[in-house]
Amino acid sequence: MPLWGGVEAGGTKVVCAVGTGPDDLRADVRIPTTTPDETIGRIVQFFQRYQGDEPLASVGIATFGPVDSNPNSPSFGHVTTTPKPGWAHTDIAGIIQRELGMPVGFDTDVNAAALAEHKWGAARGIDNFVYLTVGTGIGGAAMVAGTLIHGLSHPEMGHIRIPHDRAADPFVGSCPYHGDCLEGLACGPALEARWGQSANTLPVDHPAWLLEAEYLASGLTSLICILLPQRIIMGGGIMQQPRIFPLVRQRVQALLGGYLQVPMILEQIDDYIVAPGLGTRSGVLGAIALAQRTAS
Amino acid sequence: MPLWGGVEAGGTKVVCAVGTGPDDLRADVRIPTTTPDETIGRIVQFFQRYQGDEPLASVGIATFGPVDSNPNSPSFGHVTTTPKPGWAHTDIAGIIQRELGMPVGFDTDVNAAALAEHKWGAARGIDNFVYLTVGTGIGGAAMVAGTLIHGLSHPEMGHIRIPHDRAADPFVGSCPYHGDCLEGLACGPALEARWGQSANTLPVDHPAWLLEAEYLASGLTSLICILLPQRIIMGGGIMQQPRIFPLVRQRVQALLGGYLQVPMILEQIDDYIVAPGLGTRSGVLGAIALAQRTAS
Repeated sequence: MPLWGGVEAGGTKVVCAVGTGPDDLRADVRIPTTTPDETIGRIVQFFQRYQGDEPLASVGIATFGPVDSNPNSPSFGHVTTTPKPGWAHTDIAGIIQRELGMPVGFDTDVNAAALAEHKWGAARGIDNFVYLTVGTGIGGAAMVAGTLIHGLSHPEMGHIRIPHDRAADPFVGSCPYHGDCLEGLACGPALEARWGQSANTLPVDHPAWLLEAEYLASGLTSLICILLPQRIIMGGGIMQQPRIFPLVRQRVQALLGGYLQVPMILEQIDDYIVAPGLGTRSGVLGAIALAQRTAS
Repeated sequence: MPLWGGVEAGGTKVVCAVGTGPDDLRADVRIPTTTPDETIGRIVQFFQRYQGDEPLASVGIATFGPVDSNPNSPSFGHVTTTPKPGWAHTDIAGIIQRELGMPVGFDTDVNAAALAEHKWGAARGIDNFVYLTVGTGIGGAAMVAGTLIHGLSHPEMGHIRIPHDRAADPFVGSCPYHGDCLEGLACGPALEARWGQSANTLPVDHPAWLLEAEYLASGLTSLICILLPQRIIMGGGIMQQPRIFPLVRQRVQALLGGYLQVPMILEQIDDYIVAPGLGTRSGVLGAIALAQRTAS
């Protein structure tokens, strides 16, 4: 069986691994995200030094965005307009491919995580689903008939517009582009800015969680009305709060108001809006899944 | 070349036609939508009496919804929960298939119109696009990688939530399920209820059009952030207003705020948000396209 490499590139750290799936991650290293030169150099070194029984067939890169993930574009494989110092327009996939001399798969961290959830996690056997992550930012991916959405670019689900009652919540939103888009109202930094304390210190009975559930449910109703997904997977730091899943499910049902006569939503909502099957490993496993897809 | 039949079933009238595409619609009849028995009876009669050089290979039905368009469902081909008297749970596809003894294609009018635009109209050669119709209601369809979105059901894009500033626009919205969802704020009857006159009598410089463009653009930004479509086609009675396309394009760019660095949106918006290529014939041609897809 061939062996694959995976790179999960985040804003503060990079995880590199070698393996074939969730039950077989053979090596695993964390590298701080510093300059592109230093960081990519250490990624390349990790795979060059890896000595296994089999050689690597390919490497997958799941990275923070925005990226150019269109294989027909001249800047495919580049991080594009990120505010992260030094990283804008870095040809991360091209450099790694040239240095390692093997095929490289490439997509956003969110698209890769969705792919891993489809292959091994909460979306196994489900070809129409949404994967949403709610943390420092809000990102989303969706599969339609077995294909991840890639139109002009990858989805930017965090930036959809939702209702915002400024009388009830005068916070203007934290998104530098849109103010009170979904991410601007409901990402971790938005909670911290609104309530003056970090989301993970907000007590379970704090009104913050009801408002958070309302915003997330608003976003989900738009995703549902557009995609009618068969399942919605929600990950990220904010979703660790124990009350948030029940509150979101309840508000989604309330906001849809019985319009969609769909048993999954009306009767099986606990099985409809769910946590990731792969927990926090969906990113690095997504990178492995990208590598597999490239090699096959 | 085989010949196909198409049925465009609307709330007030049904159009039946026979042909192979936009340049070849050989017969064409309008039937008022009355009871299911009478209406379906007349549809069947039309096709039974049609005498052409070639026999019909199949018939496509593009109908008002909601419908069950999932081929694996026991109620596939049924109109489901429509408020239209007598039509709820009518097995329109099954009856026509049995009476005519030939394969029947079936989907919503909006999905069918999108299929026709893909085959012959404004989405030729474009495998990721949105088709939105703004009239008595707001309906939408989307193709992702060449496949129309069908998840748990067909899309219900009119019912997405959008920002609604009640200080600027105190109208509560016309949707019986959601009040101020996109359809509740921006469909034809919503305009009439808000301004006290029918949309087609509102003068070109009426403030209604700026507000309408704002709501439609809000909805489009959500569609764009989720699907990143390569083109958006907008049809329906409201889009006949001469100012509406330029206003919508302008507000979409403003609401996105330069976040998506995509030339199609930043530089070619006139070619990005466009009118249907098939005009008002996209419905009946969509039915013909459904028939072709079924026969092939």
